[in-house]
Amino acid sequence: MNPAFEKIVFVTGNAGKFSEIQAILASFGVEAIQNKGDYPEIQADDLEPIAAYSAKAAADDLGVPVMVDDSGIFIQALNGFPGPYSRFIEDRLGNPRVLLLMKNETNRDAYFKTVIAFCEPRKEPLTFSGTVEGKIAFEERGDGGFGFDPIFDYNGQTFGELGAEFKNTVSHRRRALDKFIEWMEKQ
Amino acid sequence: MNPAFEKIVFVTGNAGKFSEIQAILASFGVEAIQNKGDYPEIQADDLEPIAAYSAKAAADDLGVPVMVDDSGIFIQALNGFPGPYSRFIEDRLGNPRVLLLMKNETNRDAYFKTVIAFCEPRKEPLTFSGTVEGKIAFEERGDGGFGFDPIFDYNGQTFGELGAEFKNTVSHRRRALDKFIEWMEKQ
Repeated sequence: MNPAFEKIVFVTGNAGKFSEIQAILASFGVEAIQNKGDYPEIQADDLEPIAAYSAKAAADDLGVPVMVDDSGIFIQALNGFPGPYSRFIEDRLGNPRVLLLMKNETNRDAYFKTVIAFCEPRKEPLTFSGTVEGKIAFEERGDGGFGFDPIFDYNGQTFGELGAEFKNTVSHRRRALDKFIEWMEKQ
Repeated sequence: MNPAFEKIVFVTGNAGKFSEIQAILASFGVEAIQNKGDYPEIQADDLEPIAAYSAKAAADDLGVPVMVDDSGIFIQALNGFPGPYSRFIEDRLGNPRVLLLMKNETNRDAYFKTVIAFCEPRKEPLTFSGTVEGKIAFEERGDGGFGFDPIFDYNGQTFGELGAEFKNTVSHRRRALDKFIEWMEKQ
């Protein structure tokens, strides 16, 4: 691996997310350093341009290689809502109101998506995406995970029921991270 | 008025909005020039930082005084949803689904808000906000206006029923613009 990538700053305010990713990267010989810097997130219809913009802003500001991630849930019957604004909408509406929106929908298809953007200073950002497909449940089930996990049904159980440990082996974030690591190992 | 403000670039892709504001500014001796440049809009819980960031990005890039505006509808029972993401949510959900979210809500209070940000190159942006208060109707009424206008009840009639000409005399956008002009005249 390119020694330039042996130390990466991960810009996130989320301590849990950082620990999870730090442990995975460490097993590949990559040291992750948390930066809680408040870099701008732009508005866009999908996650790639959002993560890419933040990664470039942080890399140019800090002068070191940087990764950021952004995640969301995209519900097909709602034309991809809440998508890039998943956290805002979870905060404002909560799961019961999302279920109300879906009450009369027979198409329950949805996917979680994570995009990891990686950027070196004064270079263009690269993005790596991972998705996991499931269905919007008819009620909240399980108290594991967070956010939309209790209404996201993956092969008959919700992410709320499956819990974080199982979820981390199949999740959109893990899949995006695997692609990123695969790319790094080739450099 | 400071002659520096006699020519302002208004960054907007919306031709109708530009014509409306151009006419009003002209009556105060200010020439508005449209720029359709695609400057970043950031994510934030309210409109001021969004408009301010875009105005500064455009002013620093173009080297001239710039104004931008940003608008949204904030529904009290939904904790300010859809707020800064009003256009995205209007596109994805539409008015019938917003009415479905409000079906069981007795508190119908909502307000439209516009923020105009003005920025000179290499200076800090200023913001001017205007709001208009109303209620979320129980059904769409009227086909004037656009977006959420048919479900926004202002003293018994929706903005969809009142039409653009009346709306422009009381609207959030007009109120923000009035504050901006008042400020400019003092310079």
